[in-house]
Amino acid sequence: MKVNGVAFRSIWYDEHEKNVKIIDQRWLPHEFRIVKLITKNDFANAISDMWVRGAPLIGATAAYAIAEIMAVDPSNTSLETACIELNETRPTAINLYWALSRCKSALERVEVNVRAAAAMQLAHAIAEEDVVMNQQIGMHTLNIIKKLAAKKSNNAPVNILTHCNAGWLATVDWGTATSGMYQAHDAGIPIHIWVDETRPRNQGGLTSWELGSHGIPHTYITDNAGGHLMQHNKVDMVIVGTDRTTARGDVCNKIGTYLKALAAFDNNVPFYVALPSPTIDWSVNDGVAEIPIEERSSLEVSHVMGIDPNENLATVQITPQEAETGNPAFDVTPNRLITGLITERGIAEASSEGLDGLFPEFKGKNNDRK
Amino acid sequence: MKVNGVAFRSIWYDEHEKNVKIIDQRWLPHEFRIVKLITKNDFANAISDMWVRGAPLIGATAAYAIAEIMAVDPSNTSLETACIELNETRPTAINLYWALSRCKSALERVEVNVRAAAAMQLAHAIAEEDVVMNQQIGMHTLNIIKKLAAKKSNNAPVNILTHCNAGWLATVDWGTATSGMYQAHDAGIPIHIWVDETRPRNQGGLTSWELGSHGIPHTYITDNAGGHLMQHNKVDMVIVGTDRTTARGDVCNKIGTYLKALAAFDNNVPFYVALPSPTIDWSVNDGVAEIPIEERSSLEVSHVMGIDPNENLATVQITPQEAETGNPAFDVTPNRLITGLITERGIAEASSEGLDGLFPEFKGKNNDRK
Repeated sequence: MKVNGVAFRSIWYDEHEKNVKIIDQRWLPHEFRIVKLITKNDFANAISDMWVRGAPLIGATAAYAIAEIMAVDPSNTSLETACIELNETRPTAINLYWALSRCKSALERVEVNVRAAAAMQLAHAIAEEDVVMNQQIGMHTLNIIKKLAAKKSNNAPVNILTHCNAGWLATVDWGTATSGMYQAHDAGIPIHIWVDETRPRNQGGLTSWELGSHGIPHTYITDNAGGHLMQHNKVDMVIVGTDRTTARGDVCNKIGTYLKALAAFDNNVPFYVALPSPTIDWSVNDGVAEIPIEERSSLEVSHVMGIDPNENLATVQITPQEAETGNPAFDVTPNRLITGLITERGIAEASSEGLDGLFPEFKGKNNDRK
Repeated sequence: MKVNGVAFRSIWYDEHEKNVKIIDQRWLPHEFRIVKLITKNDFANAISDMWVRGAPLIGATAAYAIAEIMAVDPSNTSLETACIELNETRPTAINLYWALSRCKSALERVEVNVRAAAAMQLAHAIAEEDVVMNQQIGMHTLNIIKKLAAKKSNNAPVNILTHCNAGWLATVDWGTATSGMYQAHDAGIPIHIWVDETRPRNQGGLTSWELGSHGIPHTYITDNAGGHLMQHNKVDMVIVGTDRTTARGDVCNKIGTYLKALAAFDNNVPFYVALPSPTIDWSVNDGVAEIPIEERSSLEVSHVMGIDPNENLATVQITPQEAETGNPAFDVTPNRLITGLITERGIAEASSEGLDGLFPEFKGKNNDRK
């Protein structure tokens, strides 16, 4: 999407300089830095140190890494070693494994002398698939926003609340939850976004930076504020992303999502989840009971990073020195609280029947669905 | 309550040094600083610059201010001027006005030559009344905790979640929501407290400091985490304070309280509110519709204060430079989500009938109750 009027993706191949470029997201939302990735080490660092983040973007970065490595040494050994080494950069990122496996099995079947070209073509394809999927999700979201806009008088904006960053920085372009916002704004529909801060990592800052850079009106709020705003009719819809969706439509997303779903339900505010179908885990049904929740570092809670008065990045501790902290990273929103799941194929009811209807090829794959 | 094994109140008269002492709360939870207040200016600064905070503590501080001023000049003019000037230090603090009015009308009726002694006696009485009221609230809370403890096996702790700081730092001693925690801990009942951070002002840090200083096991969590913890049976009860309670038992408290009440309701976790009866506003019924919510400074959301690596207090901006922020300071929890209101007289159902039953002297005072 746009940054100061110029269209960007989170990763791209610079045809002029003949190298891969990314946005170094460690400095956002405070600084916009573009870096080039050339060596295997560059790519490995970019993934492990979170210069890039978000499942789809990590997958695309791995695919471009393989392409650049194949350009230097397209041998079978090189391919195999690269896949093993890159896969270790973030062991729990499922998209990393998926992208590397796909590259490996495709490129193994290609002659060594054309492997570099094939690898680059595949990286482009993987990136493009993500862009198209998110664009389609946005199209379906746009239809919902249009209906809400039609009910407004005096060209009042549609107020949308979102949690965390399911934006283009976490994908190759568009984002998932944000895709419809960009499409609505670009179509001239007045919208205003309530951006949840999303403690402890404050990814709301990224969403705020994204929206601001593209020119979309928004307000950054604490995670505590959303319920009050809904009580006072200041939210027309909620839309969030998801890390994992169960076969019956429970949604595992960034911690705090469940609280917003409860507030939306209590105030009759529609609550949507935007998801590319690969995030559906057809082997799981009851999200609360079955999905283990990662407990992350206490430093994320006790320390906060920002810009100090001298414009330098600085970290301060906000908790008492001896305080213990808890940091569950995700929570599960039960399907009963969800108005609809917005996939690339359309909007499904958050239920086994709803998801089976849109994705009949998976029907019955998990036998003990409830 | 205790700090490193020594019992403290948030304000006290030092009989040895013959002056009033407070904890300068601006440095908490990072530093524990005691300061003496002597002149009218000392007291005025302490109130206006929030060295002291919390309605009951502000009231007690004002009463001690009058006592110290009367010791220097007990004239009618001095009394009148002091009340006017002190009342301007925090114009919206209702307890400040209440305490000053009480001092003025009591001391006007006292001879000038004994006014200083009477003023000090009154200040002690005002402080003591708060202590007793909170102690009683804690006693009723303790009964609830005891019942929960009786259901636990293997001496497992009762897990209590609280939001914001309704602790002894906001009162003279005990606190409201925390009073029962101290009484349970001191009685040897194993408890563990989940302390909500409470963005944007992070008053959870104060609660964490209080509990840690007294030796009560607790965990500091982000405001997003509570729903997940309740889904997984890690919370046995929620208890919070309140800034204003309506005649039918709706509760206006720090922003985000409503979200925790929704999660408690959804997971059958009892949700209690601790309140000294002066916080009941008998003229208001429907809290969501009738109570105006203060929108506070955007700086509270955009900037965070903590300790930097050199152990200095430092402030960093966490939002993008141009981001707009929203900062509603309170929200209203409807009575239907509240298990009980814990007052100094006992526990009332959160309803007109419940409150009328405990406070029959106010019954019918507001005619259009629903």
